[in-house]
Amino acid sequence: MRIIEIGERFGLEQLRERTVPDPEPGPGEVRLRMRAASLNHRDLLMIRGRYNPRQPLPLVPLSDGVGVVDRLGTGVDGLCLGDRVCPALLPTWPAGEPDRAALRRGLGGPLPGVACEFVIARPEQVVPIPEHLGDFGAATLPCAALTAWTALVSHGRLRAGDRVLVLGTGGVSVFALQFARLAGARVCVTSSDQQKLERACALGAERGMNYLTEPAWGEAVRLWSEGGVDHVVEVGGAGTLAQSLRAVRVGGTISVIGVLAGTATQLDVLPILMNQVRLQGIFGGSRASFVEMNRAIAASRLVPVVDTVYPFGVEGLKAALGHLESGRHFGKIVLDYGVT
Amino acid sequence: MRIIEIGERFGLEQLRERTVPDPEPGPGEVRLRMRAASLNHRDLLMIRGRYNPRQPLPLVPLSDGVGVVDRLGTGVDGLCLGDRVCPALLPTWPAGEPDRAALRRGLGGPLPGVACEFVIARPEQVVPIPEHLGDFGAATLPCAALTAWTALVSHGRLRAGDRVLVLGTGGVSVFALQFARLAGARVCVTSSDQQKLERACALGAERGMNYLTEPAWGEAVRLWSEGGVDHVVEVGGAGTLAQSLRAVRVGGTISVIGVLAGTATQLDVLPILMNQVRLQGIFGGSRASFVEMNRAIAASRLVPVVDTVYPFGVEGLKAALGHLESGRHFGKIVLDYGVT
Amino acid sequence: MRIIEIGERFGLEQLRERTVPDPEPGPGEVRLRMRAASLNHRDLLMIRGRYNPRQPLPLVPLSDGVGVVDRLGTGVDGLCLGDRVCPALLPTWPAGEPDRAALRRGLGGPLPGVACEFVIARPEQVVPIPEHLGDFGAATLPCAALTAWTALVSHGRLRAGDRVLVLGTGGVSVFALQFARLAGARVCVTSSDQQKLERACALGAERGMNYLTEPAWGEAVRLWSEGGVDHVVEVGGAGTLAQSLRAVRVGGTISVIGVLAGTATQLDVLPILMNQVRLQGIFGGSRASFVEMNRAIAASRLVPVVDTVYPFGVEGLKAALGHLESGRHFGKIVLDYGVT
Amino acid sequence: MRIIEIGERFGLEQLRERTVPDPEPGPGEVRLRMRAASLNHRDLLMIRGRYNPRQPLPLVPLSDGVGVVDRLGTGVDGLCLGDRVCPALLPTWPAGEPDRAALRRGLGGPLPGVACEFVIARPEQVVPIPEHLGDFGAATLPCAALTAWTALVSHGRLRAGDRVLVLGTGGVSVFALQFARLAGARVCVTSSDQQKLERACALGAERGMNYLTEPAWGEAVRLWSEGGVDHVVEVGGAGTLAQSLRAVRVGGTISVIGVLAGTATQLDVLPILMNQVRLQGIFGGSRASFVEMNRAIAASRLVPVVDTVYPFGVEGLKAALGHLESGRHFGKIVLDYGVT
Repeated sequence: MRIIEIGERFGLEQLRERTVPDPEPGPGEVRLRMRAASLNHRDLLMIRGRYNPRQPLPLVPLSDGVGVVDRLGTGVDGLCLGDRVCPALLPTWPAGEPDRAALRRGLGGPLPGVACEFVIARPEQVVPIPEHLGDFGAATLPCAALTAWTALVSHGRLRAGDRVLVLGTGGVSVFALQFARLAGARVCVTSSDQQKLERACALGAERGMNYLTEPAWGEAVRLWSEGGVDHVVEVGGAGTLAQSLRAVRVGGTISVIGVLAGTATQLDVLPILMNQVRLQGIFGGSRASFVEMNRAIAASRLVPVVDTVYPFGVEGLKAALGHLESGRHFGKIVLDYGVT
Repeated sequence: MRIIEIGERFGLEQLRERTVPDPEPGPGEVRLRMRAASLNHRDLLMIRGRYNPRQPLPLVPLSDGVGVVDRLGTGVDGLCLGDRVCPALLPTWPAGEPDRAALRRGLGGPLPGVACEFVIARPEQVVPIPEHLGDFGAATLPCAALTAWTALVSHGRLRAGDRVLVLGTGGVSVFALQFARLAGARVCVTSSDQQKLERACALGAERGMNYLTEPAWGEAVRLWSEGGVDHVVEVGGAGTLAQSLRAVRVGGTISVIGVLAGTATQLDVLPILMNQVRLQGIFGGSRASFVEMNRAIAASRLVPVVDTVYPFGVEGLKAALGHLESGRHFGKIVLDYGVT
Repeated sequence: MRIIEIGERFGLEQLRERTVPDPEPGPGEVRLRMRAASLNHRDLLMIRGRYNPRQPLPLVPLSDGVGVVDRLGTGVDGLCLGDRVCPALLPTWPAGEPDRAALRRGLGGPLPGVACEFVIARPEQVVPIPEHLGDFGAATLPCAALTAWTALVSHGRLRAGDRVLVLGTGGVSVFALQFARLAGARVCVTSSDQQKLERACALGAERGMNYLTEPAWGEAVRLWSEGGVDHVVEVGGAGTLAQSLRAVRVGGTISVIGVLAGTATQLDVLPILMNQVRLQGIFGGSRASFVEMNRAIAASRLVPVVDTVYPFGVEGLKAALGHLESGRHFGKIVLDYGVT
Repeated sequence: MRIIEIGERFGLEQLRERTVPDPEPGPGEVRLRMRAASLNHRDLLMIRGRYNPRQPLPLVPLSDGVGVVDRLGTGVDGLCLGDRVCPALLPTWPAGEPDRAALRRGLGGPLPGVACEFVIARPEQVVPIPEHLGDFGAATLPCAALTAWTALVSHGRLRAGDRVLVLGTGGVSVFALQFARLAGARVCVTSSDQQKLERACALGAERGMNYLTEPAWGEAVRLWSEGGVDHVVEVGGAGTLAQSLRAVRVGGTISVIGVLAGTATQLDVLPILMNQVRLQGIFGGSRASFVEMNRAIAASRLVPVVDTVYPFGVEGLKAALGHLESGRHFGKIVLDYGVT
């Protein structure tokens, strides 16, 4: 099979393609013929060596993908040939709270990722996907969609009528917008790009907030929401946290999901204390949450927003990563494995 | 002002109308000019003396209504002349869990109800209503809507993709259907009337279940929901509980809200134990939940389903109660106080 | 190895002992040398064919035991030779909520139980036990202790100062008493035996309630608790539920755990509705809850109450089951496998 | 009556004593003869003008005290002459979540405080106190104890076996230690004073951590707790947050309660994100939580730790504030109103 891997050293230019023998499933395992993958900011950090500089190399990157069961090991229960499934981003987190080890064992680093034609997995490490989804949409679920779901639903207990602030229009953010609308919440989205704000409104956002023309957007969001939003989906990290603290209501939650705008900041803890705000770090979610999310996606026939599709291969991946890094995308960037 | 009251004894025929002096608000109180009221099954029981046979008489009945602030006592904070508000069904339950005393102090028994032209209240005992609602819709919120909200949202933590079984098409049930849809849930409604099932589906129910043609509807609901529903909104009481226990999933919740089909039953506790089912009694909700519900109603511009409107007065009330008792209604029955 | 099994038909007299080849662990599995087991009411029902009359036979009974890892299969992660562990009662329930299948796959029926000298398991199906516990105490944890913990802590969110009613002094009940005290709650225990009530008080119960001399014990408990208890640990089932409903506070919880006093009853649903009571079926718990419970047991050096110890073997088991059925025990009945 | 007030300007030296007419309760109000008060760090900030520089002056300071009902206004329900009660710190927060207004309306700023011989209140603004407490102990409950309870119990859902890190030995911290022990948790306390660490251990702390001799105490706490604590009671604020983030487990909670060591810090958000940590701002608690806490204090006969008692009066208050500022105290500093 063809695999893509980070070679001897970190860096986009170190990505290389190789052909290795097709893997076979052992007892209790299945083999997936991969059909599509999607990219996350984490993949970019991983390839650059910034996510974990001590990650042993070479490494097959990418955490998110979808495949079809094409071979069954002995004694496999609960999966059939032809089942279309996503490998879980964190395969040792079945349900409930994660332990430290489970959070540290992600696909695409330190575990081998899905940038290869076949993946071996155990049934409890994969999740069946809703039938109405195409392969490209299905490939976007394991990290981006599940992180948004965990933040808003599992931790955030989103209720109809809640007001949600979503920063930007990347993968997690667009899913957060979609899930919030699904649950009857009102959504404000920020961007510096008027066209993206219009797309967000077309997806159901009530308010688009251009942070270039509205630099004090925290206060503007507070006004829009009549006292502060219930949830902030904070992907900016250190660079936007001060404004998010302005935007959130007394007793509200800021889900700290990403660090696009930096990891360290001069933080003033007083607003957290005085307004009883909750800052909740979120990364991924459990397999049980994945199943629950898929049930909601199926019930509503929600369609993930795919920005662009690149062909599987080292050149396609490099182009896709460049596009991700540019920040010009809206929703998810996908790799097509060319299998039908 | 005109008031309707249960006279010296219980019974529909004991309802009478009187004229009494208009009340004046004391310090910290406001006066509401009532504009509409709505009926609940509880009112029927109260008037018949079945809700609480020891209730002192005479009593002004009806718990649910909407009015406009037309006079302010001294030192009133937070309300203005012209504000349109609903008195809370349980005025001494501000938030959180109720205590026994708060649950026992409901409008329309033991406290005087809203079947009168003016009501005196303190600001913390009323709730502002969404602007888009007409008076008839607003009058339906305090008991029926809030009970459905408390069951599904406050206690049930409804999530998108959840499967909800709603019994019948009375006031609480239609609100439960609407709130469940608002939150992205899938709904099955039961009725013996095909037309009502069609109306329920027009409001978003995925499945209408005719319990006459489908006497083993518990099993049918389990099949529809692929393993059992997450929530049952149980208004039938003893008469339907056995089927509801068939319909609910392992770990699911049955909100016990009403007793239309009787109060006592031969219950088998084994299914509760073996399937880890939760039976949760629900009656009304806190003022904080009322505010939260109204926020959701406003955000979604949800419109309560009003079945029929009768004129305020003892004859109108008797006719309305007869209609309620007939069970032919779909949604809420309202009294119009003829004020604009 | 020696195994005890229910033979061709159900019944205590059908229990028999056989010698079979020692099992060997496969890849990813370990072998446990069992050291002790404990009995639950469920075992009695299972052997009699009342738990599941369609259970295929023969079957090795008993769900609860403790053993030491004496052989490792290939590729085992996270367990070492000499580790002392309990097999989980429900080995496919890792954390969070159970699914239907997981609840139906218990040790000692339908899965083979621990009434044998060696047990084969995967690491995620066993739980390390606190060091300070002897083998007899450790053998009591998987069903009785975990059920009490799940009821009071995982579901019940027990808080210091809560008032807890514990019915009887069997295995689950004594653990419920101990866990409630550990968490700073006040406990009332019922029994018909004054000596057992005294033992319960010696373990920290504030009040012992003799239900023979106090037949209206529901009301008496309400008085003791100044308005009703927060939690009832209801092991009696149908026969005691009416009194439990008298004893619980508005908004309180009744954990329906067992059916010692019958499965079907004439239930009045009105008290559930009017007092917003929660009835919550509980059976066992997840592996994550087991780990959490053990942490609490270790931190407090809690010692399970062992009533009697019988020797491993078909005669010992029969005697032990007879003692369990007599109801004369206080705490747990244990089988000693004679290994040190 | 004698009152103490912050005069025309902020500052300890601006505190002055005056005699004003005794207040009388209005309709629905009661009068309390105050018997003791206790000091919080917030009082020091308020008097210095650092809590809210725009606070109108003069102001009667101090939020926490206990008094006896000595006069009843007309129409008072639920309180009798002679009842001993504490005024609630935040009198408009009955239960559930606070709104912004309720959080901003605290006793001792902006509302008049308890540094006076008589206080007027409505019954729903005061809380009866456990009988076993003396006046000095009772005076410590409204802010310090309730903040610790809200952090660990209401928000933190503390469970037996949890590991808790408590920073320092001030009022909130000692209550956090006591409540954690009451609930069966293990506690580590930090201090730079070996004698205080010994006192903490005498109160049940398992580990005392001297942060002078152990400057990397975050890591040391992680080792002690075998992977990180479940809760951190963080009173240091900006100056200690980095170490607290080292000490907390994956998925754990840091309750941000105070800002003794500064309000602004260079915060690295990565650990929050990667370890799914929750930072939760906490200030005070609802009246319902106060009642619940008192129930736990009564059940366990917990005795608050009083460090020193000063006489009521401007000189006594200045001395008490100086002692608070010195940081030499362990537990609470109290004013005695000299009433018996």
